[in-house]
Amino acid sequence: MTRVTLDTVRALDSDDPLAGFRERFVLPDGVIYLDGNSLGALPKAVPERVSAMLHEEWGRHLIGGWLKDGWMEKPLVLGDRLARLVGAAAGEVAVVDTTSINVFKLLSAALAMRPERTVILSNAENFPTDLYMAQGLIRQLGAGHELRLVPETEIEDAIDDTVAVVMLTETNFKTGAVFDMGAVTRAAHAAGALTLWDLAHSAGAFPVDLNGTAADFAVGCSYKYLNAGPGGPAWMFVARRHQEAAHQPLTGWLGHDRPFNFDLEYRPADGIRRHVCSSPGVLGLVAFEAALDLMLEADMTAIRAKSVALGDLFIQLVEQECDDAGFRLISPRAAGLTPPWIRGSQVSFAHPDGYGIVQALIARGVVGDFRDPDVMRFGFAPLYQRYEDVWHAIARLRAVLDGGEHLAEVYRERASVT
Amino acid sequence: MTRVTLDTVRALDSDDPLAGFRERFVLPDGVIYLDGNSLGALPKAVPERVSAMLHEEWGRHLIGGWLKDGWMEKPLVLGDRLARLVGAAAGEVAVVDTTSINVFKLLSAALAMRPERTVILSNAENFPTDLYMAQGLIRQLGAGHELRLVPETEIEDAIDDTVAVVMLTETNFKTGAVFDMGAVTRAAHAAGALTLWDLAHSAGAFPVDLNGTAADFAVGCSYKYLNAGPGGPAWMFVARRHQEAAHQPLTGWLGHDRPFNFDLEYRPADGIRRHVCSSPGVLGLVAFEAALDLMLEADMTAIRAKSVALGDLFIQLVEQECDDAGFRLISPRAAGLTPPWIRGSQVSFAHPDGYGIVQALIARGVVGDFRDPDVMRFGFAPLYQRYEDVWHAIARLRAVLDGGEHLAEVYRERASVT
Repeated sequence: MTRVTLDTVRALDSDDPLAGFRERFVLPDGVIYLDGNSLGALPKAVPERVSAMLHEEWGRHLIGGWLKDGWMEKPLVLGDRLARLVGAAAGEVAVVDTTSINVFKLLSAALAMRPERTVILSNAENFPTDLYMAQGLIRQLGAGHELRLVPETEIEDAIDDTVAVVMLTETNFKTGAVFDMGAVTRAAHAAGALTLWDLAHSAGAFPVDLNGTAADFAVGCSYKYLNAGPGGPAWMFVARRHQEAAHQPLTGWLGHDRPFNFDLEYRPADGIRRHVCSSPGVLGLVAFEAALDLMLEADMTAIRAKSVALGDLFIQLVEQECDDAGFRLISPRAAGLTPPWIRGSQVSFAHPDGYGIVQALIARGVVGDFRDPDVMRFGFAPLYQRYEDVWHAIARLRAVLDGGEHLAEVYRERASVT
Repeated sequence: MTRVTLDTVRALDSDDPLAGFRERFVLPDGVIYLDGNSLGALPKAVPERVSAMLHEEWGRHLIGGWLKDGWMEKPLVLGDRLARLVGAAAGEVAVVDTTSINVFKLLSAALAMRPERTVILSNAENFPTDLYMAQGLIRQLGAGHELRLVPETEIEDAIDDTVAVVMLTETNFKTGAVFDMGAVTRAAHAAGALTLWDLAHSAGAFPVDLNGTAADFAVGCSYKYLNAGPGGPAWMFVARRHQEAAHQPLTGWLGHDRPFNFDLEYRPADGIRRHVCSSPGVLGLVAFEAALDLMLEADMTAIRAKSVALGDLFIQLVEQECDDAGFRLISPRAAGLTPPWIRGSQVSFAHPDGYGIVQALIARGVVGDFRDPDVMRFGFAPLYQRYEDVWHAIARLRAVLDGGEHLAEVYRERASVT
């Protein structure tokens, strides 16, 4: 493989059709931020939009904002907008509550739709909160249901006629490996099972085609590749064909067919609206709105192309510059420009000193993150990263290793945040 | 009763120990805002705090904010602060999710703690979302549980040994009538039942003493009398003595004893933390933080005294100025400065043309709200209202009636927002 030089990467930046987006984010001086897979960077439009909501909407319209400023409808209005990013139709997505809570809702719906089946099938590598929510639901339902975990490579083979719902996070949070959503969904449907996809590490990272793959249910967050800010509102998808049958237990008043009738009996609204439970948190929603509108200006195919190129470049430079250092690539080396995607928008290396290396890199302004036991994660966010950032990140990695900075005593005590 | 004059109310304002708080809120010119019981006004500290969070925390620290800026701990840190307002101890309150979802969690916990009992007892006048959440939970648990509704005057008599939990909103959202929390809780405990109090219209409105009344569980919102903004984060209380036994099904990763171990099995954290499910929505939390800190500067006894005086004044002026107009007071006339509170911080009148009157008042800058079938609600927020506001509100009400403004055709079509 041809040796990569600084000129190579600068040429990539000058040809980058997405280069103009970078200036629309706030990025601290000197920082190379490779952790957008955990928390996206701040779009400049977010403070503007939030400030407008506070001063022009809440401050001036007070209670009138619920109608005048469209606060009440925002979960569905933003859902329709987000639908375009994930291959859903209008009326199939709501922006609401948290990813975990939406998992609970949709697992409840799925189990009730397959009453003769007892198994939630998932993989042991899934992000734990999804597993925990399934466990909480199963305990509440009493005996009879089971969360069955198999290695991710064995999922398709494990789908049998006991499985009510296959619950998977499309992109593995540690390795970045991506399930073949179409193939798994076909296997599930062939066995009469439903699918629930967690798209936390997929939406905004690469093209998602929920209806093209005939997915049944999905959830996702807004604060990773969608840049809505820490703990921003989550979202959920229910395929149109299931909307009448999908009932869930968090039946709040805004999911009622006529919330302002104040009836004594709950009666679910039609469509996705029945999954909206409570008065929406408007501050979080308008932040997401600004971030989402920015994302929708970009072409998702171009985002994917650049994401793959950034990841490939990262791998190539680690191998070129740090060949002797004992890094082990645990992300898939392959990455598709069309499905199957194989690798998402992150690259992970295992290293025995991974924790110290990540911390020493952060001290040098290169922000990735660490996951037990030895995983270094680096995420690629094509809207605000340059190819040259990857070059300098690896140069600083080389410097960390050369100086033994990662072996400092202070890095022996571990802590991490998703 | 002595006739009230403009001089009377101006004298009250000059003696008002809380008068200085008004300038710390954004209030539109010419508007008399009597709907803080639905959505509190914007504290000036909120945009400042939100802007600081965006620019100084997210913008500069990126992922580091979760620890560096205390984002991760905010649900418990704010819970401890809020505890002071509601008579709870540190470690008994978390700021998390929505009121409806917290009702679901705590009803689940309560039913599991009373497995031999089948009834959730509530009143038909309760705010519907609490009833709907109970219905959703009961449906999910399968046959065996029942939501039993009785008129609010009959609650204490209806508590028998079939009742697992008495679920009440302390302050009636339509009438402002306040349950005697101490008496009801004693009656519940005498029958072996638990209590779940919804304090949406109580917290910040008048003193709440959860531990003084031996309450078991409580929930509340932040966006009415606590001024955190539309759909701001909710909160929940679990009395210390129940924390080990209280298990709920929304077992997200942040309620795990060791979230960053990424164990496959959920194991609940000790204390209130197990009820925190998901990554907290930081924007909503910092807005609440600013609003809460402002509220904590004020003396809750002084807030109550002014609230009662504003409500009494409102009633007296309606009766003095609009005696002929057919208003029927549906709030309790009495209001305590010590428990029982009897009337909360709102006053409601019924009137056959109530909808039109409320709309015509809004057109004249006096913002109250309307609830079916004929209820006009007016809320009192002592931190930003003046006695003189009440005077002018009633003067404009008189003008509406005199001009027949409320009979305009445009008001025949109804819409309302809680």
